[in-house]
Amino acid sequence: MSVEARLQELGILLPDAASPVASYVPVVAYGGFAHVSGQLPFIDGVLKKGRLGENVNLPDGIEAARACGLMILAQLKEAGLLDKVERVVKLGAFVSSTPAFTDQPKVANGASDLMFEVFGERGRHARAAIGVPALPLGAAVEVDAVIAIAGE
Amino acid sequence: MSVEARLQELGILLPDAASPVASYVPVVAYGGFAHVSGQLPFIDGVLKKGRLGENVNLPDGIEAARACGLMILAQLKEAGLLDKVERVVKLGAFVSSTPAFTDQPKVANGASDLMFEVFGERGRHARAAIGVPALPLGAAVEVDAVIAIAGE
Amino acid sequence: MSVEARLQELGILLPDAASPVASYVPVVAYGGFAHVSGQLPFIDGVLKKGRLGENVNLPDGIEAARACGLMILAQLKEAGLLDKVERVVKLGAFVSSTPAFTDQPKVANGASDLMFEVFGERGRHARAAIGVPALPLGAAVEVDAVIAIAGE
Repeated sequence: MSVEARLQELGILLPDAASPVASYVPVVAYGGFAHVSGQLPFIDGVLKKGRLGENVNLPDGIEAARACGLMILAQLKEAGLLDKVERVVKLGAFVSSTPAFTDQPKVANGASDLMFEVFGERGRHARAAIGVPALPLGAAVEVDAVIAIAGE
Repeated sequence: MSVEARLQELGILLPDAASPVASYVPVVAYGGFAHVSGQLPFIDGVLKKGRLGENVNLPDGIEAARACGLMILAQLKEAGLLDKVERVVKLGAFVSSTPAFTDQPKVANGASDLMFEVFGERGRHARAAIGVPALPLGAAVEVDAVIAIAGE
Repeated sequence: MSVEARLQELGILLPDAASPVASYVPVVAYGGFAHVSGQLPFIDGVLKKGRLGENVNLPDGIEAARACGLMILAQLKEAGLLDKVERVVKLGAFVSSTPAFTDQPKVANGASDLMFEVFGERGRHARAAIGVPALPLGAAVEVDAVIAIAGE
């Protein structure tokens, strides 16, 4: 089954891939790996802003991480790589956090669970989840990825 | 000499590999590289919590980083990769820090020195060390790794 | 044209490559990728310290990120890899930030634009830019890199 068919089966609609805004690009595929730039959580086109432990609660943080994961998939699709995914290798999850907030893993699961839903065993990845004081544009979460790609 | 024999020679006892807690896994080996998830500092089974510059002093921070490094080795062992290590390629060291604490490199050396002790020249790696406001479960340090692996 | 000639054409003088200070090294090249350690912003030999949103303004932050990029190039040169660069694959940009500062992408462009200037299309990379509360030695910015290298 193609990944697009699987997404349809799951009722998952990918967002429009966010455009590059500078001298960097959303995805670089080289030597069998696609490195995906840090993606921000756009939900229905609106950036989810805020900070966990302050003005974003855990369910909303999880949803934001999932939105970052959807944007990673959207970028892979835009780059023509979605059906070439051999393995989700690594996710980096950056969670805007107060010093007292320590549930970064639960937040990051929003992106991790999505990868497992969509890719099954191939979606099981290594991960680092950390708290940060501030993210681009005030985003609540940012997630980047290393993806193993067939034939690149 | 096997890495296990070298660890024994150094009197280093690896911790039990911490179990995966979600849709992510401790290690993904693909295309010659093993990506190891961010590991937390368990010392005698107890998580070292706190923040450098606040309630964790430098020697304890260094010990915490070393504990993260030991957990990286434990995860590689659990994955059957410990004797396939060709090179420690990169460590990412995330140090829970107050805004005034700037000795992240000294803290990270706890993990870096361990890799050199165990693997010698093959243990010399690239590294990024940064301060963060908060880590999973309140950990003082988190370290992830990219490891070159033979025959994967 | 060699990269050194291109740098000369652009009037760019590389700094001296900062020396390794511990059991880690500035660059590890393995399996076609060079991982470059997080580099700090030395401008005329002086570390640019401070925090965006507090005591470093945006133009100075951009200049600091560019200085980190120059140090990445200096490390590649020192490792004999500058003319083997096939692609700048990924930059990680860590910006010392107050919780209110959210222009990390603009800061990181200092490094990104440099890569494009020097390498053209091969310099277009994936990127993650995040805020952090504190960096080694009080630096304003730190940037690490994954670089595709020919024949390593």
